[in-house]
Amino acid sequence: MVTRADLEERDRNDPLAPLREAFDLPPDVVYLDGNSLGPLPRRVAERVGEVVERQWGRDLIRSWNVHGWIDLARRVGDRIAPLIGADRGEVVAADSTSVDLYKLAAAALEASAPQRRVVVSEHRNFPTDLYMIQGLSRTAAALSGSGSGRPVELRTIGSRDALPEALGDDVALVMLTHVDYRSGELWDLEETTRRIHDAGALALWDLAHSAGAVPVDLDAAGADLAVGCGYKFLNGGPGAPAFLYVARRWQERLRSPLQGWMGHAAPFAFEPEYRPAAGIGRFQCGTPPILSLAALDAALELFDGLDPAALRTKSQALGDLFLELVDSECAGFGLEVACPRDGQRRGSQVSLRHPEGYAIVQALIARGVIGDFRQPDVLRFGLAPLYLRHVDVWDAVQHLREVLRTRAWDRPEHRTRAAVT
Amino acid sequence: MVTRADLEERDRNDPLAPLREAFDLPPDVVYLDGNSLGPLPRRVAERVGEVVERQWGRDLIRSWNVHGWIDLARRVGDRIAPLIGADRGEVVAADSTSVDLYKLAAAALEASAPQRRVVVSEHRNFPTDLYMIQGLSRTAAALSGSGSGRPVELRTIGSRDALPEALGDDVALVMLTHVDYRSGELWDLEETTRRIHDAGALALWDLAHSAGAVPVDLDAAGADLAVGCGYKFLNGGPGAPAFLYVARRWQERLRSPLQGWMGHAAPFAFEPEYRPAAGIGRFQCGTPPILSLAALDAALELFDGLDPAALRTKSQALGDLFLELVDSECAGFGLEVACPRDGQRRGSQVSLRHPEGYAIVQALIARGVIGDFRQPDVLRFGLAPLYLRHVDVWDAVQHLREVLRTRAWDRPEHRTRAAVT
Repeated sequence: MVTRADLEERDRNDPLAPLREAFDLPPDVVYLDGNSLGPLPRRVAERVGEVVERQWGRDLIRSWNVHGWIDLARRVGDRIAPLIGADRGEVVAADSTSVDLYKLAAAALEASAPQRRVVVSEHRNFPTDLYMIQGLSRTAAALSGSGSGRPVELRTIGSRDALPEALGDDVALVMLTHVDYRSGELWDLEETTRRIHDAGALALWDLAHSAGAVPVDLDAAGADLAVGCGYKFLNGGPGAPAFLYVARRWQERLRSPLQGWMGHAAPFAFEPEYRPAAGIGRFQCGTPPILSLAALDAALELFDGLDPAALRTKSQALGDLFLELVDSECAGFGLEVACPRDGQRRGSQVSLRHPEGYAIVQALIARGVIGDFRQPDVLRFGLAPLYLRHVDVWDAVQHLREVLRTRAWDRPEHRTRAAVT
Repeated sequence: MVTRADLEERDRNDPLAPLREAFDLPPDVVYLDGNSLGPLPRRVAERVGEVVERQWGRDLIRSWNVHGWIDLARRVGDRIAPLIGADRGEVVAADSTSVDLYKLAAAALEASAPQRRVVVSEHRNFPTDLYMIQGLSRTAAALSGSGSGRPVELRTIGSRDALPEALGDDVALVMLTHVDYRSGELWDLEETTRRIHDAGALALWDLAHSAGAVPVDLDAAGADLAVGCGYKFLNGGPGAPAFLYVARRWQERLRSPLQGWMGHAAPFAFEPEYRPAAGIGRFQCGTPPILSLAALDAALELFDGLDPAALRTKSQALGDLFLELVDSECAGFGLEVACPRDGQRRGSQVSLRHPEGYAIVQALIARGVIGDFRQPDVLRFGLAPLYLRHVDVWDAVQHLREVLRTRAWDRPEHRTRAAVT
C-alpha cells in the first residue's frame, strides 16, 4: 500500500516539481480543474502589467509596431507548435475554439464541394463543436439561393466503432476531439487520421484537452487541420484566445469564410477586395485581444524547452495513482471509474461516475479540492503535470473518501446548481 | 485671432476637463489617435490587476460564478447601450467587429432569403466590412450544393448619392459605417434608416467611430442591427472585444451562423442540439477573453452618468478649432481639408490631405503629436472629448505648421513604412 510519505518521496524525485513554483496557486487548494481553467503563472501577472501600463499606457498606438502586437498572434502560434507536433508557421492564435472550428470546417467543406458535403463527428463530442457545424449547415442551406436541399450535413456516430461505416464518399471532413472531455478517452490520432484519409476525407482535430498535457504530433500523423484551447492546460487565462493549425500543404488551398482585415495580405493598404495573406496568417480575422493574447504568450514560456514526453509520463503516473487510490480508499460508496484505466488510452484527467456527482463535487470544492462536474453524473479531475504533486492526488482522494463516508455532499447548498458548473 | 491663452481659458471652463485625470496619458504626448486606440484609463490598470491576481489567481474557476464572468459580456453590453440609444438587453460585447458583422449580416440574409440576397454598402467603407461579406458570399456559393449561382451579393456604391438607386427589391441589408473612417463624414442615421426600411431592407450600422464620441440613438431611429468597436473611443484597450446590437423586435427572429456554446440556452446542460438563448445572449459564440473584457468594462465606467450631448459639443468645438487653426496657421503648404467643415456632418475627427501625408504624420509622431495616416494621402486626427484639451489642438497645429514650414517630414526615416500605419 502506498503511503503519503511515499508520495512525498516521489515529489522530491520529480524532475518537473520545480515548475510548481512558477504558478501562483492558493495554498489551501488542491487544483484539479486545470483542464477547465489553468491557474495563474506568476510571470503572466508581470507581463500583463507591463502590456497595460508600459505598452498601452506609454507607447499607445505605436506598440503595434514597437512591441510587435501585430505579429503576436503568429508568435504565440509558433510557441504552441512544438507542443502539438507542428512546424513554425502552421499555427496561429485567434478568436475562440468555436470560431476557429467554423473557419476550418467551412474552408474544408468549400475545398471539397460539391462532391463531398458531410462532416462526421461524435454524438458525444463537446457540444460547441457540433453546434458550430449545425449553424454552418443551417446558414448555408438558407443562403443557397434555391431554398432546397441541405448543403452541409452533420453526421454523428454514437460509438467509436461506428466510424468506418460513417466514412462514405460524401464525407468532406471528420472532426474529432482527441481527448474526450467527459471520459478522457483518447483517439489514436495517427491511425484515425490514416483511416480518414483512406476514405478521402480531411481530419480536423480538436486539441482542447490535449495541448500542454498530452503529446500530439500533427505533422507526423499527416493531420490536416486542428484547433485548441488557450485557457486549459496552456494556462493562458480565462477565455484566452484559441489556436488553429493548418498543415502547410493546405494553407494556400484553403480560404477562411471569416475573412477579416487581419487575414489580408496587406491590411493597411485598405484595398476594397480581400486578398488572403500567404500562409497561416490568412486564418486570422479581426483585431486580436492583446491583453488576453499577451497573457497566453507569457504562460506559454513555461513550456519552453520542456520535453512533452516528460509531461506525459508524469500525467499518466498521476492518473494511475488517482485510480489506484480510488480503488483502495473509496470502495463501497457507489463510485465508478468512467475513464480508461490504461494510461496510454487516457488523457490528462480522471473521470468517475456517481449518481450524486454534482453534490460530491460541490462538497469537495467546499473542502478546497477543486474538480468539476459534467452532465449527467461525471466527476472530472484534471491532472496537470506542470504544477500538481503526487501528494495532491493523495489529499484529493482522502477528501473524496471523507465526503463519501460522511455523506458531506448531502446538503442543500451542494445541490444548488450554479450558472457555471 | 485665437491665442493659446484663450484656449487655456476655454479649458478652465470646460466641464469635461476633470475627466482627463482619469487617464494615464504620457506627459510629452498630444494624443490624437484615440479613434484608433483609446489611451489607458487609470482604473483599467487596477481592474486588470484585480482580475488577474485575485479573481483568476485566487478564486480560479469559481470566478465564473462568484465574480460574474459568465454574465460579463452582457453587463458590458448594458453599459454601452445608453451611449448608442439602445435599451438594456439589446447589446452584448463579443468577438471582434469583423466577426460580429458576419454574424449579423448572415442572420439578416437568412431571415430575408430567398427573395432578398443583396447586401448594399459603400465602396469606401472600412475594408473589413466589405471583406466579411465577400467571404460570406464566397462560402455560401461554394456550399450551396448546386455549385451554380451566387447566393449572396455585395453591391457597393461609389458615392452616397447612389444609395437610392442601389435599393432594389433584392436588397436584404444595407451595411453602412456611421462615421467614415477616412473623411469623418457622418451618415444621417435616422433618415437613412427610414430610406432603407422604405425599400424593405434592414439597416446594419457600424458604429466603430461613433460609440463614445458621437451620440447615436439606434432605438429612436428604428435601426435593426449594429456593431461597434471597444478599443477606439470606448478606450477598452488594444483589441478589446467588439459589441453588437440587435433591436429587441428582431432578437427572437434572427439566428447567428456562429452558434457556439456561450449562445446556447443552457450552455452547461451540454445538449447535443443547439438551442439559442433567449434575447441578445444568442449572439455570443465562444468563451470571451475575460482579461480584455474586464478592461473594457472598467474603461466604460468613465461614461457612467455622462451626457452624450456634452461630449458631442466639445468634440465639435475641438474639430472646429482644429480646422480654424489649420486655415490660419498652415496655409500655403498644400494641405487640403478632407472632412466636412460643418461640425454637424463630421464625426469626432479631423482629416486633412497632403501628397506627403505619410511622412508628415511620422514627423509629427516624432515630435509627440500622434495622429495616423490612411491611404492614399489622409492625415487623420482623432478628437476625443474625454481627455483632450483645447490647448492640445493648438499645440498639435503649431507642430504641424513647423513640420510643414521646415520640411521636417522630408527625411528617409519618415518615409519608411511600418507594418502598422
